[in-house]
Amino acid sequence: MLEIEIKAYCENHDDVIEKIKSVGGRLVKKADNLDIYYRHPSRDFTRTDEAFRIRAEDKRTLLTYKGPKLGVRSKTRFEREIVFEGLDAMKEILEKLGFAVAGEVRKTRAYYRLGEVEICLDSVDSLGNFVELEIKGDDREAGENTLFEIAGKLGLSRFERKSYLELLLEK
Amino acid sequence: MLEIEIKAYCENHDDVIEKIKSVGGRLVKKADNLDIYYRHPSRDFTRTDEAFRIRAEDKRTLLTYKGPKLGVRSKTRFEREIVFEGLDAMKEILEKLGFAVAGEVRKTRAYYRLGEVEICLDSVDSLGNFVELEIKGDDREAGENTLFEIAGKLGLSRFERKSYLELLLEK
Repeated sequence: MLEIEIKAYCENHDDVIEKIKSVGGRLVKKADNLDIYYRHPSRDFTRTDEAFRIRAEDKRTLLTYKGPKLGVRSKTRFEREIVFEGLDAMKEILEKLGFAVAGEVRKTRAYYRLGEVEICLDSVDSLGNFVELEIKGDDREAGENTLFEIAGKLGLSRFERKSYLELLLEK
Repeated sequence: MLEIEIKAYCENHDDVIEKIKSVGGRLVKKADNLDIYYRHPSRDFTRTDEAFRIRAEDKRTLLTYKGPKLGVRSKTRFEREIVFEGLDAMKEILEKLGFAVAGEVRKTRAYYRLGEVEICLDSVDSLGNFVELEIKGDDREAGENTLFEIAGKLGLSRFERKSYLELLLEK
């Protein structure tokens, strides 16, 4: 199972929200996210294109591993995620194992759903507004086609394959 | 906060249970445990005396880091633990990060409580019966004294500082 994903710059979220609703999408939830990204003790994730992070949402905490991006069109990658209890203890465990904080990303995210596609309207601290579209599946090409078609309907055209962390570290 | 702990060999759990009850201890729960211990991707835990494992209990899964043992009397060590959901996903995350399975320990454990002390009656696959006594705190010496005093009352006298994993790997 892959996380097939594309990301686009977006000047105005309100325009996108109207278009999501006009094609039958609905708001699922809004949440503040703090993502804490880690360096591996013996591997350079910036070279291997992997990511490992804790996400603290309003009501739950998650641990996520993302493998290298596959292909060149999208941000599709292998992803595994677990929900856990005990944010401070998890931070301590990772530090004891030699993982060091690489950077933090703070954003507010509104989750919309349109069929099998999740549409996230992100306002990222220091970076601005983005829209991420995601679908889960094994057929990358079919998934990418679906996402780019919806992106077209939402008026999105300027895409970005870099992660928020990469964009922040470049600033 | 330390996990101050001692472990003793035990021929007959029934004798110990009677003694626990006679000093006011009570059964909290029984559970089957599968502990999956991992090797670090770039550090030799058998040399650093650390441990990192997933525990699958009957009703929950835990991730635990244990630092090197402190002192020479007990198995006291720094410990942090989190509860999580998603056993298979966690295994995949650890494998992707370069952690490899070092060994597995299966046991049935009966948890008793006597004041602040947790008494675990363990029947470990391939190793036999043991009793572990544990107290949490910052004063290692005081904690050790408490545990050895209770161990005396329970008729325990043959202590072991090695972990179940170490004992299994030695066989």
